[in-house]
Order: sequence, then structure tokens, then C-alpha cells
Amino acid sequence: MKKYHVAILGATGAVGMQMLESLLEQDFPIASLKLLASERSAGKTITMKGHSYIVEAADEHSFDGVNIVLGAAANDVAKKLIPHAVKAGAVVIDNSSAYRLDENVPLIIPEVNPQAIKEHHGIIANPNCATIIALVACQPLHAYAKMKRMVVSTYQAVSGAGVNGFRELDDQIEALRQHKEVEIHTFQHQIAFNLIPQIGSFDENGYSSEEMKMQNEGRKILNEPELQVNCTCVRVPVYRSHSESIMVEFEKPIDVAKAKELIAQGQGVKLVDEPEKSRYPMPLSTSDQDLVYVGRIRKDLSGHDNALSLWCCGDQIRKGAASNAVQIAKLLIASMEAKQCNE
Amino acid sequence: MKKYHVAILGATGAVGMQMLESLLEQDFPIASLKLLASERSAGKTITMKGHSYIVEAADEHSFDGVNIVLGAAANDVAKKLIPHAVKAGAVVIDNSSAYRLDENVPLIIPEVNPQAIKEHHGIIANPNCATIIALVACQPLHAYAKMKRMVVSTYQAVSGAGVNGFRELDDQIEALRQHKEVEIHTFQHQIAFNLIPQIGSFDENGYSSEEMKMQNEGRKILNEPELQVNCTCVRVPVYRSHSESIMVEFEKPIDVAKAKELIAQGQGVKLVDEPEKSRYPMPLSTSDQDLVYVGRIRKDLSGHDNALSLWCCGDQIRKGAASNAVQIAKLLIASMEAKQCNE
Repeated sequence: MKKYHVAILGATGAVGMQMLESLLEQDFPIASLKLLASERSAGKTITMKGHSYIVEAADEHSFDGVNIVLGAAANDVAKKLIPHAVKAGAVVIDNSSAYRLDENVPLIIPEVNPQAIKEHHGIIANPNCATIIALVACQPLHAYAKMKRMVVSTYQAVSGAGVNGFRELDDQIEALRQHKEVEIHTFQHQIAFNLIPQIGSFDENGYSSEEMKMQNEGRKILNEPELQVNCTCVRVPVYRSHSESIMVEFEKPIDVAKAKELIAQGQGVKLVDEPEKSRYPMPLSTSDQDLVYVGRIRKDLSGHDNALSLWCCGDQIRKGAASNAVQIAKLLIASMEAKQCNE
Repeated sequence: MKKYHVAILGATGAVGMQMLESLLEQDFPIASLKLLASERSAGKTITMKGHSYIVEAADEHSFDGVNIVLGAAANDVAKKLIPHAVKAGAVVIDNSSAYRLDENVPLIIPEVNPQAIKEHHGIIANPNCATIIALVACQPLHAYAKMKRMVVSTYQAVSGAGVNGFRELDDQIEALRQHKEVEIHTFQHQIAFNLIPQIGSFDENGYSSEEMKMQNEGRKILNEPELQVNCTCVRVPVYRSHSESIMVEFEKPIDVAKAKELIAQGQGVKLVDEPEKSRYPMPLSTSDQDLVYVGRIRKDLSGHDNALSLWCCGDQIRKGAASNAVQIAKLLIASMEAKQCNE
């Protein structure tokens, strides 16, 4: 089996660390592995599953000899460094939103649009976390009955803000316990025992950037430019898993039994739907694993015969970010190897 | 001003205690006040705003000479004792769900259907908390454009389970801090750092009893038997305020500016809608007060011209339960006094 020179850009963040873990877990064929981060983190040692790595400062020359870069850096760093990685001959799978809507960049969820891998020109974008989780949950239903409209309300974990998100929730709970003043650094307001209906900044239409991603990225990934998505994104005091309440209207009828059967057979999803036994997806039971759990599937009560409601949860750092990127990397090497065989 | 002999049935619970506070806050004309609870609580002293009350055990004879009973007891207690209160000549405003859908019992939100007060035969029902909050938020819009369909996802505080709900959240967080096992008594699963998509038991159609209340009670309160409501109810680790993400389709067009104007002038609601300044309703900022805050008002993106999305929060114990009941009591005495004047 061919092995690859891999780099993780932004390796010291929550997603970067999870990329490292997911690469090792998924037995990715690694020839060499470079952990790249900011100057500040350079020289740090990261140990994962018995391997130790020394973090290097990322710059324009970091990508010489690298085949695959997993990007977990912020948009500005992505924009600055990724072109150099591409120039050096690497293929970059980028988790920032910098290139997601670029028409030369495929935006991929392996369970949904693996075929898009062929269209890359050096950059492949990893979608927004809430979008990945919603589309992995709905893909088996979409393939059968075609989604026309989604009304989504999210319940998003603090991990969406990385390591700082975890820390802020913990610090605030501890401050409250000690009757001290709560400090706010990462989110717009106190998140402990609260909900914040803002993720990202707001567009003029009143939707947040996170809310618009569900429609804009969803349309691109599904290649359904007419898909209508109404989304409300809310931060909740939960650590790792995002949850979503989704009402979907389909082009053709789909009953609950069929939907359950499709989810049970679907890729990347797990049906957990025995509400009478209090079994349904929850953030706690879906954390630190790669599947999106789907349950509470039921017929829409609000008058649309072709509509269903469902509830799904998935680990935001794993399937919502790092594991999806590593899955794309595996898809990429399979596609490169198939191409070489055909040549 | 005429004064009334008042009793609170179930006075030692979270809602009962808030009924007492709201009665005193709203200067209800009280001639005498009886706090009734189970045998177990009898003899306890409750002190509120400088007044002390001794709790009495509730039985069939507790209501002699009482004019108005505020009921905050469970369904079984309500069913057992309320007929005796009515027989004794009292009017009961009951917060349990026992009588809500009884056609001889008006179900009232004073901001929405005050006229229904005339139709009582001794019992008036106080609606479900999530239903009150959603309908108070939407009523100014409904009066203008008539709601046809609502798709609602709730984010419901632990106070919905009363004092035990608070305690469970606190105890679980403390257990986690001490690396002890988390105990589960009140909810179906751990609620600390988790979400539970179950409130109540499940119907055969897959909806929970709480989810069905939004449609069943909503239709009755609005006198709109055709109103379509699709609801997903989720318990969140927040103390007091319920939040709801609501997509509403109206019979006639309504733009965002008009909707904001209507909410700003509406009864029982407060418009908090400057997302660009990170100002929107949140559980923390809406706790321990009686208004329902509404914000994030925007045009539906999912293809329906007559639809809006909004986000609302309201204190579950106050407006979702106790304060609404006290408002009904005030409506009741106004109606009784008007009737006497006309006679």
C-alpha cells in the first residue's frame, strides 16, 4: 500500500488534534506526519496513541514534499498558506470556510457526494459541522424521496468554538459555584445555564453566517440549487455533540416505516428510535464517535403529506469536522490510486 | 375594592410558590389566603415578602368559604379535589393538564383569548407552559395575518419539572465535578451537559404529550381548529426560561418591519431584536420576569412568502405557569365585578 506524506495545519486546536487521532484510528497510510501550527505553539510535543510529534511553525515553505494537508486553521491562515501548499503539489482538505463556496473547490461529505472528489484542483473543502450532521442524517431519505425544503433548529455544542469553548463553559460553571463574577471571552454572552441564538455574524437578512451555511453549503453538496433551507442556529451548554431538530418536505411521499428502514441501512448514520423506551439520540450518547444518530422520526403534523420530522445528533469535532476530513483524505487516495491503475 | 378568599392548591411546589409571589406582586385583592399542599407539607411555614403562612393539608373540605383557587397540583390531585372546590362555590384556575381540553373549561392566555373567561363553569384551565410562551409571542402577528402553520422546536428549562428539576441539574454538575457517579431521578437521562428530546410520554404517532399540547391547546386557545402545529420538545440544561425557535406560515403576507412593529406594540411581549449588537432573547435575560421576549424575526428562507421565523424566551414558572394563572384570576374578578355592576 502506498504511503503518504501528511501535514495537519492548525494541529494544536480541538479539530487539529482530532484529525491526528482520526488519522491514527482510521489507519491512514502515513509515510510522514507534520504537525503545523502558529509560531507560538512551535516546539511543543504532542503525544497521541503512543506516537510523539513536535509541532512546527507553519509558513509558506512548510509544504515541500507533502502529499496531503488537512487544514484546521482559521480562514485568514487558510487563505494565506493553502495556495503555497497547492503550489508545492499537495492536495489540501480544508476545514475553514474560506474556499467552501469557490466553484473550483469541491465540498464533500463522503456519504453524500463522494463523486465530487474528481473535480478538485488541489483544494477540497470540508463543510460546516452542522451542515455535515444534518445532511448525513437526511441523505438516505433524500436519495429516496428528494428533499425540497428543510426547517432546521440547531442545538450546537461549545466545541464549535474549539478548546476555548470547553474552557469557557467550565470556567463559568466554576465561577458560579464560587459565587464569583462570570467572565465572557469566547461567546457573546454567558453560555453556562444559558442559550445563545447567535453563531457567527449576521447578514442583512437577519440570518447568521452559520444559518446561511446550511442552505448555501447544502445546495452545493447535494447539487440542488433550488433546495430551500430555513435554519436557526443556537449555542447550548453541551460539550461536543451538535443536535438538530429537522422538518423536511420531500418531493414524493415517504412514510415513517420506510424512513426508518432507509436510515437503518444508511451510511454513516445509526437509527436510535424507540422513544417509548426513552431511546433517541442525545449529545452525551453520541460524543466521541463518528456516526450521526437519527431518531424521533415521525410524520409532519402540520399538514404536509410528504414531510417528516426527525432529531439527530453527531460529534461536532469528529464527524462535524476532523473525521469527515480524514474520510475525504481516504476517498482522495482511493481516487488517486484508481486513477494510477487506469493510466 | 372587593377582596377575595384565595387558596393555592399545591402551594409548596415551584409553581405554587411563584403563584404566592405573583399574587403579592400583582397586588391581588386578598381577604384571606390558604396554602394547601399534601399531608407531608402540612404545618410548614412559608414566608414571602414579609408575610408568613402555615401550610394546610388539602382535602375535600379545604375549600369552604374560598372564592378563588389557584391550582398547582398534579393531574391526579387536581381531578380528585377540584370538583369539591367547585361544589363549595369557588372558581378554580388550574395549572394541571387534567381539564385543559374539556369543552366546558375555558383555556386562557389573557393576552390571547380573555373573552373566554365568560364561559367558565367553575373551572378555568391554565395552558401548557411552552404553549403559553409560543402563543404570547405570536399573538400580535396572528391578529394581523392569521397563522396557518407553525413549526416549533423548543429548548425547555429544567424548571418544567419543578424544584426537583433544579436540584437534579445542580446535583449532577456537582457529581461530575467530584468525579462521582451521576444520579438520575427526575429526567429520563442525565441533563447536565446534555439534551433530552422527550418531555412527557409518547403517543403512537411518535409525538410526545408535550409536543401534542402545542397543537391541541393552541387550536383551542386561538379557536382555530385547522391550525397545523409541528412541534419538537427538548429539555435543555437551563434553569427557568423556555426558549422556542418558531417558523410560522400566515394566511396573508407580513414583512419583517411590520412584524417588529406589531411585537413592539403587543401585549405581554417585548421586542429584543438587534442581532448585529448581539441583542436577542436568551433564557438568562428573561428569567424571573413576566414578559415573553421576541427577537431574531426574519423572513422564511425556505420558499414561503407569507412565513417568518422568530426566537422567543419566557420564564416558564412565571408567564409559563404562575403569573398567567394570577392574570386569569385578575381577569376573573374584573369579569365578576362587571357582571355585578350590570345586574
